Amino acid sequence: MSNFGFQWLRVVHPFHIAFREARSAVGASHVMAAAEEFPSVANAVSDCALVVGTTAIGERELLHPVQHLPEGARVVRERLAAGPVALLFGSEKRGLSNEDLSHCHWLLRIPTQTDHRSMNLGQAVAVCLYELARDRKVASPEYLVEPAADAALTDRLIGVLLEALQQSAYTSPDRAASTEEKLRRMVLRLSLRADDAEVMLGMMRRILWKLKHGDGAAPG
Amino acid sequence: MSNFGFQWLRVVHPFHIAFREARSAVGASHVMAAAEEFPSVANAVSDCALVVGTTAIGERELLHPVQHLPEGARVVRERLAAGPVALLFGSEKRGLSNEDLSHCHWLLRIPTQTDHRSMNLGQAVAVCLYELARDRKVASPEYLVEPAADAALTDRLIGVLLEALQQSAYTSPDRAASTEEKLRRMVLRLSLRADDAEVMLGMMRRILWKLKHGDGAAPG
Repeated sequence: MSNFGFQWLRVVHPFHIAFREARSAVGASHVMAAAEEFPSVANAVSDCALVVGTTAIGERELLHPVQHLPEGARVVRERLAAGPVALLFGSEKRGLSNEDLSHCHWLLRIPTQTDHRSMNLGQAVAVCLYELARDRKVASPEYLVEPAADAALTDRLIGVLLEALQQSAYTSPDRAASTEEKLRRMVLRLSLRADDAEVMLGMMRRILWKLKHGDGAAPG
Repeated sequence: MSNFGFQWLRVVHPFHIAFREARSAVGASHVMAAAEEFPSVANAVSDCALVVGTTAIGERELLHPVQHLPEGARVVRERLAAGPVALLFGSEKRGLSNEDLSHCHWLLRIPTQTDHRSMNLGQAVAVCLYELARDRKVASPEYLVEPAADAALTDRLIGVLLEALQQSAYTSPDRAASTEEKLRRMVLRLSLRADDAEVMLGMMRRILWKLKHGDGAAPG
């Protein structure tokens, strides 16, 4: 809940020891600290304009309209403008009872595989809240796009590569033109960043120097 | 994984007791039963054409391009047409190390709240796989995608490059590890096609041979 910006956790007759421990745990988020306890589902959802149940699909669902998560989340977002919406999850072991379901307007189904529908409770909650928050506009990009290598830099790299290939007899002088064309096509496909192209140019220059000078001294 | 139809779980030096218990647990899904164990990330992703890391945002991520999950999942789905894709998750406690990250082409970020970014591992996996399966269409590629270089081919290229850089004293043996990490990051950013990687490997092998043998005879 905290990961996706949801604040109001309401629990209906929880297992008290676990609930108290979770609330008092070091680092318990503000969500746990502010969680409210209710004696029944009816109490918990009394101020909600829409109550949406979540459950692994079963026969009981035939009693309710079922929406798949991507579409259902869109409806929930729209309805949030009109008032609070409750998303109701059952216990890990037994899910929602028929009495619980009777408080729901409709049901949300996470599109899982037909042969493995039942989900872990924490994962189901995470997936539903992710989808609800999914299209929330996100702030500006958090990383800079690296500038791309320009043609002059790319040409220098291709030139050094070609010379190294000639020095090592990968290509012969009479095939230089076609090798260069092939090489250029390939290097352009890489869509190099300027910084990567500079590093490669430095590497290939060092290799070329060594090809030319062998075991002599280091370049001056 | 089972909920969303993903089958291939690969684990890198897991905590053995927990891993064995999980595999042998009653009702362990076919995913756990078929899980494979690897000694290193490099081994685990060797046949993958694209390796995508997942991590709570941090400074380390500035070294990699970052995609938000909805857009990143779209790219992963497209790239699945060209070869296997690995989604790499770190341990619950420490996430992915810099060495782990050096095997990644780019990083996937679940758009969480800025004041609570770090997610529970199981929930992060569920959310990522939900998004990948969310708009799953029946596979009908409309155009041919060139197969991408898998990690084994990329590793061979990096190995030959590194040797050439050592032969030409671009890097010294004591800096080999950091040069390799830098080199790997750069090469992965190129997202090489398999055919281009093969050509580059051929070029660099020829250059390396020449660096080692100088003006002697051509390779036999």
